[in-house]
Amino acid sequence: MTAIDPAFVATSEPLGDLALCHARLQADARYPWIVLIPRVAAARELEDLSPDQRRLLMDEVLAAGHAARAVGLALQRPVEKLNVGQLGNLTPQLHVHVVGRRRDDPAWPGPVWGFGSAAAYALDELATAIAAAKLSLGL
Amino acid sequence: MTAIDPAFVATSEPLGDLALCHARLQADARYPWIVLIPRVAAARELEDLSPDQRRLLMDEVLAAGHAARAVGLALQRPVEKLNVGQLGNLTPQLHVHVVGRRRDDPAWPGPVWGFGSAAAYALDELATAIAAAKLSLGL
Repeated sequence: MTAIDPAFVATSEPLGDLALCHARLQADARYPWIVLIPRVAAARELEDLSPDQRRLLMDEVLAAGHAARAVGLALQRPVEKLNVGQLGNLTPQLHVHVVGRRRDDPAWPGPVWGFGSAAAYALDELATAIAAAKLSLGL
Repeated sequence: MTAIDPAFVATSEPLGDLALCHARLQADARYPWIVLIPRVAAARELEDLSPDQRRLLMDEVLAAGHAARAVGLALQRPVEKLNVGQLGNLTPQLHVHVVGRRRDDPAWPGPVWGFGSAAAYALDELATAIAAAKLSLGL
């Protein structure tokens, strides 16, 4: 069991565990946003994963993109573009953001990271988003 | 031959072709920054690549990270953190940014995309950066 940085727990909802990553839904109603956290102790960069782990990560980034699209559809705001980011400047534990973007989202066309403050989900929308993401990810 | 969007030509210097991607050095002295452009016609998202192409892309993202580190060392500003981003909100042709970050760089800890304006390289630094990146990438 790899510990999840409390920064993720504070800002996202658990979806479950894929083959490599713990998957979470970012608690930000502005964008359908999946966070993937490889369950690999002390990993901070992609180069800290084995080649097999990197292959799994790429597969799971793809799956997270499908899940972000599924969340967008469930919330009647279909995703128009996917953005993928692996930064970790603030939270060093290796993680990958997969974010569904639309031309009418608040940060478009800039990146979402560091842009404004998260918007809380309405409770029913959060439940809808989590259900759609889990179904898409097979969780 | 896949055409490279003129937006890349205007903002970066060619390094050469890897197995999948055309590699370029972003013409921005603020950060050691490699841009990878898969030579796959009409690709806009990772899901537009085949599984084999995605595996190659992951390998080349790793290689570009090593190259960004090499550029940072050559310019005596060692990279402290790698940032990887696949956005494409402005330039739709599929591409991946691999950026070497430092705590003293102007955008830290935020993302580099959309942050301020590129700083021109001094000519000798540009030559040094290109040489270091090519050597690291085997180009």
